[in-house]
Amino acid sequence: MGRGLFISFEGIDGSGKSTQAQMLAEQLRAEGFDVILTREPGGSPGAEEIRALVLQGDPDRWSAEAELLLFTAARRDHLERTIQPALDAGKIVICDRFADSTRMYQGLSRGDLRGAVDTLHQLMIGIEPDLTLLIDMDPAAGLARAKARATEEERFEDFGVDLQEKMRAGFLELANEYADRFRVIDGNRTLEAVSTDVRATLDPHLERTPA
Amino acid sequence: MGRGLFISFEGIDGSGKSTQAQMLAEQLRAEGFDVILTREPGGSPGAEEIRALVLQGDPDRWSAEAELLLFTAARRDHLERTIQPALDAGKIVICDRFADSTRMYQGLSRGDLRGAVDTLHQLMIGIEPDLTLLIDMDPAAGLARAKARATEEERFEDFGVDLQEKMRAGFLELANEYADRFRVIDGNRTLEAVSTDVRATLDPHLERTPA
Repeated sequence: MGRGLFISFEGIDGSGKSTQAQMLAEQLRAEGFDVILTREPGGSPGAEEIRALVLQGDPDRWSAEAELLLFTAARRDHLERTIQPALDAGKIVICDRFADSTRMYQGLSRGDLRGAVDTLHQLMIGIEPDLTLLIDMDPAAGLARAKARATEEERFEDFGVDLQEKMRAGFLELANEYADRFRVIDGNRTLEAVSTDVRATLDPHLERTPA
Repeated sequence: MGRGLFISFEGIDGSGKSTQAQMLAEQLRAEGFDVILTREPGGSPGAEEIRALVLQGDPDRWSAEAELLLFTAARRDHLERTIQPALDAGKIVICDRFADSTRMYQGLSRGDLRGAVDTLHQLMIGIEPDLTLLIDMDPAAGLARAKARATEEERFEDFGVDLQEKMRAGFLELANEYADRFRVIDGNRTLEAVSTDVRATLDPHLERTPA
């Protein structure tokens, strides 16, 4: 069995990354690929339980350090139960958010934890995506879109434009830091135009993945 | 405000460590000390929720790595919400199990994770007890006692004598490794005799703790 392809989507709230992840999964399936579409935090039964533990209730009930450990536990479970078995079976794994979201959020709120974030990742996760697609979006437009679809998990949406701008800058910094696997895609266009660009970034990778 | 005193109890199942922790707390309170009696896993509202997540359900639903991260998250929350505030207020904290239990259990089941256990502890916990009281007990006698009080959380009790012996050896190794803070107390005696020895080990520490 060959190794599959691991693709993550990142972007600010309302960037359209989840929609693009879903559109890519559908397109690749239509092309005959075996695709797993998953997301973080969550993505496996255990990780979903940890997600609920962190995101429900008083937002201040966990410190940044405890939350980082809980999200790393969720990512480990997600990796073991969902991502790695699919990659081992040669499948394409499309993940809506992965470790870069943790790096970006912790960098914003607790930059002093970046060393701990990296050490935890190396120690307990180890893997990076083969390809990370950053859907880059105008912060104000993204915020308007995110507000229009408020959910019960508002923690990750309840930010002003100022914070959206910092999130965008944080992701662009990561795109420079991990330039070998990041591709930045202009999300300020029609879904179809963005989706066409997304699909095109996969071409160099799909040559080595069996259909 | 002076720094308090942090005491942990360790020992195999049925060693009487929980009873001794409680007896010590009562005695110190009778002597006029301000005492917090707590336990792991758990010891704070958030940590108790993580404890339930780990201990309930199928024992195999978490890998050793995911469980280690979850217990470290619980310990971090316990430290922040219960232990550290009490120590900062000059109190005596008595904790039924702490990081040595993690070291012992992981050493037994997944010795290859010892490096990860230590790195996680240094990175996210940092603190060690001032005094760790290992209640050393005959493995067969401990097992008989543990079996007589089976609870709904049988995971930590459902071991044979063979495993009890390995657990005892694991704790004794830790007592050698951390000889400066460990005191080994013979638990194969009456509760009162053990309790008298336990109280005596505190004398050098209590001189510097305000009553």
